[in-house]
Amino acid sequence: MRDRSDTPDEAVAGGGLIHRRSLLVAGALSASGLGATLKAAPARNSPASMLEPGAPLSGYGEPGPAAAAIQRIVPALPFPGTGSSRTPLHLLEGTITPNGLHFERHHNGIPDLDPATHELLVHGLVRQPLSFRYEDLLRYPRESRILFLECSGNSGAIAADRPAQVSAGQLNGLLSCAEWTGVRLSTLLDEAGLDPAARWVQAEGADAAGMTRSIPLSICLDDAMIALFQNGEPLRPQQGYPLRLLLPGIEGNASVKWLRRLKVIAAPAFSREETSRYSDLLADAHAEIFSLRMGVKSIILSPSFGLDLKGAGFHEIGGLAWSGRGRIRKVEVSADGGASWAEAALTAPILPKALTRFRMPWQWSGGPAILMSRAIDETGAVQPRRADWIGKYGPGQGYHGNAIQSWRVDPLGKVSHVYA
Amino acid sequence: MRDRSDTPDEAVAGGGLIHRRSLLVAGALSASGLGATLKAAPARNSPASMLEPGAPLSGYGEPGPAAAAIQRIVPALPFPGTGSSRTPLHLLEGTITPNGLHFERHHNGIPDLDPATHELLVHGLVRQPLSFRYEDLLRYPRESRILFLECSGNSGAIAADRPAQVSAGQLNGLLSCAEWTGVRLSTLLDEAGLDPAARWVQAEGADAAGMTRSIPLSICLDDAMIALFQNGEPLRPQQGYPLRLLLPGIEGNASVKWLRRLKVIAAPAFSREETSRYSDLLADAHAEIFSLRMGVKSIILSPSFGLDLKGAGFHEIGGLAWSGRGRIRKVEVSADGGASWAEAALTAPILPKALTRFRMPWQWSGGPAILMSRAIDETGAVQPRRADWIGKYGPGQGYHGNAIQSWRVDPLGKVSHVYA
Repeated sequence: MRDRSDTPDEAVAGGGLIHRRSLLVAGALSASGLGATLKAAPARNSPASMLEPGAPLSGYGEPGPAAAAIQRIVPALPFPGTGSSRTPLHLLEGTITPNGLHFERHHNGIPDLDPATHELLVHGLVRQPLSFRYEDLLRYPRESRILFLECSGNSGAIAADRPAQVSAGQLNGLLSCAEWTGVRLSTLLDEAGLDPAARWVQAEGADAAGMTRSIPLSICLDDAMIALFQNGEPLRPQQGYPLRLLLPGIEGNASVKWLRRLKVIAAPAFSREETSRYSDLLADAHAEIFSLRMGVKSIILSPSFGLDLKGAGFHEIGGLAWSGRGRIRKVEVSADGGASWAEAALTAPILPKALTRFRMPWQWSGGPAILMSRAIDETGAVQPRRADWIGKYGPGQGYHGNAIQSWRVDPLGKVSHVYA
Repeated sequence: MRDRSDTPDEAVAGGGLIHRRSLLVAGALSASGLGATLKAAPARNSPASMLEPGAPLSGYGEPGPAAAAIQRIVPALPFPGTGSSRTPLHLLEGTITPNGLHFERHHNGIPDLDPATHELLVHGLVRQPLSFRYEDLLRYPRESRILFLECSGNSGAIAADRPAQVSAGQLNGLLSCAEWTGVRLSTLLDEAGLDPAARWVQAEGADAAGMTRSIPLSICLDDAMIALFQNGEPLRPQQGYPLRLLLPGIEGNASVKWLRRLKVIAAPAFSREETSRYSDLLADAHAEIFSLRMGVKSIILSPSFGLDLKGAGFHEIGGLAWSGRGRIRKVEVSADGGASWAEAALTAPILPKALTRFRMPWQWSGGPAILMSRAIDETGAVQPRRADWIGKYGPGQGYHGNAIQSWRVDPLGKVSHVYA
């Protein structure tokens, strides 16, 4: 048996944060009394489940009845195909989002495309315009990557004057992460042959919004992918079947779904979705356009609004961190509203442009606490405080909301969203 | 534009295998003519999908109609709750198996357990027997790991006298991979306090088979987990809801689902599932028992039986490799029945006890070919040839079938299973 005197539950910051090492050492937390009940002897009777054969095998499995409440968050909309559904992040664990719960953002509904006739055209400033059928693309070399996808408008509610009292999923659920498999875009562009004047690529979807974005050629030649599979299976219609653009680390709507056309061009097209939308008015009345890369960010999911604490003692503060620039280097957590910070444990593997789970052990005294998390990525970029984020932009900014968020825990364990 | 004279499509082994580097260099394969069609100008007309709004958002998404054939492979069984369904590996990509397609192996159906009343009892050679409710376990520190799970009987058909002409999924689909999240088992055992005489742990499920396995304490204290979540969402009933044992790298049925009891014991219980079943008769008439760890293995999924080639030229030979001992170090591929081998590209991240995707570029001449793959893990263990694997065991061996498999491609592109 281990020597309990080694228990590394030393305080590392205010408000009861204890060293992340305690998550890794068996026994470190064993005195915490997390609810296990002393039991003198096992019950003699077998439960009913052991007395009758259970349910059969199935072809495509479904979540059980106990998970019926774990759904994407779908708002009431006048045109239900136009809008977004959010991943219930606060009810999930790990970093992979099941395909059924990956967030959706459609600008005019989900088209029903036939892979036998749908083609991807590569044209414009190329040596030879090419058209690729789905079947053709399945013969090209493939790659797989675990990548986050985040809508540029995710967490836009943090710009509001008062903190929205909504779940972490409602607030931040235009964010998901999956293993995507497809063909490197550079392979197709290289086959078409780029003209020396080529600088941008205009991507167009086959949906009824004709979703169109201009993307710098440098991004297209870096790690962009024509995605064909998501978490092992073919893309679902909600995610662009039969094929979509996938731009790692870039705001979601540029990863055009139901992709039908890539036009290589010399200057951006200035389409609606990059002028009237998806550009950022700054405090000095200038605007940032083509601010495509998503910033470094983290959110605490547990505890969070609606997931109240049931008592003092040990709790794990858990959440997600990510950056459009690469890997997460560090996540710091505060339990005293930012007065002191301690480093959280990160779950391996820490992948570039993917979600990373962080966990922080916390001995909650039962007093009021304000929980915050702050991510730092491998480029050294630090997640901004809300006041700094607000100060950068003009009124009404709803994109790139990567500021630090805060949850207040009151002495009853109730969790509310606060600006701190 | 890139200089095409650098094209690294050099031969690296017989039968048309070319250097894996060619997968990574844009342009290397661009002369291959994979089916892209020259197109003088884009079509002027928008497709019908752009003229009408599409389908709406949804709470829990489903695969589209085009994926209707991608189902687990369920045999016709007299007792449909007792048996297994297989992951259609040959129709999937990447390494993550969607929860709906994770293989099932039930010994008496799927029980319907209530998380409000289900308890996990830890007793036997412990200082204090403890009972954990689901709600208790949700308060313990968690970890997440991407891990394969493989039934000991997977690929058992390779022991047959003649090679089964079935899909790669039918042959090998008692294999899946997911991100599992739960509580380290050592945390719970430590809280109960191990008696110095403790050497084994007997795990029992709450299903109608009363599934029971004895597991060496060393495995339980290493990386064993009480899994609560799979690919982000709570375990599904098919996978043990509300909780299961998860033993990384160990034969699947020891990861007891619907776990109700862990009894710490001094010697194995020699239950039915570790004596009459799940033990290995050797050629010398001795038997291996508690041969729990799964061996190093790889399988080619593309091309494979039922996925015939449509013509000579470039093809990617793709498949999966894994080992119960840790990471995959290397996968070698042969296109000439094992006469020569070349190293395949592995897709990062290469995680311990997880599936790793390998890819090998191949210029198929159109002549007959026999494709094989051979994995080597980080301990240096090498996947055995079928003859060596057969020679080790007594007649009727159906477990731990990790021998090299072979697909024959005939000049028409038809793929058949052969012993080579």
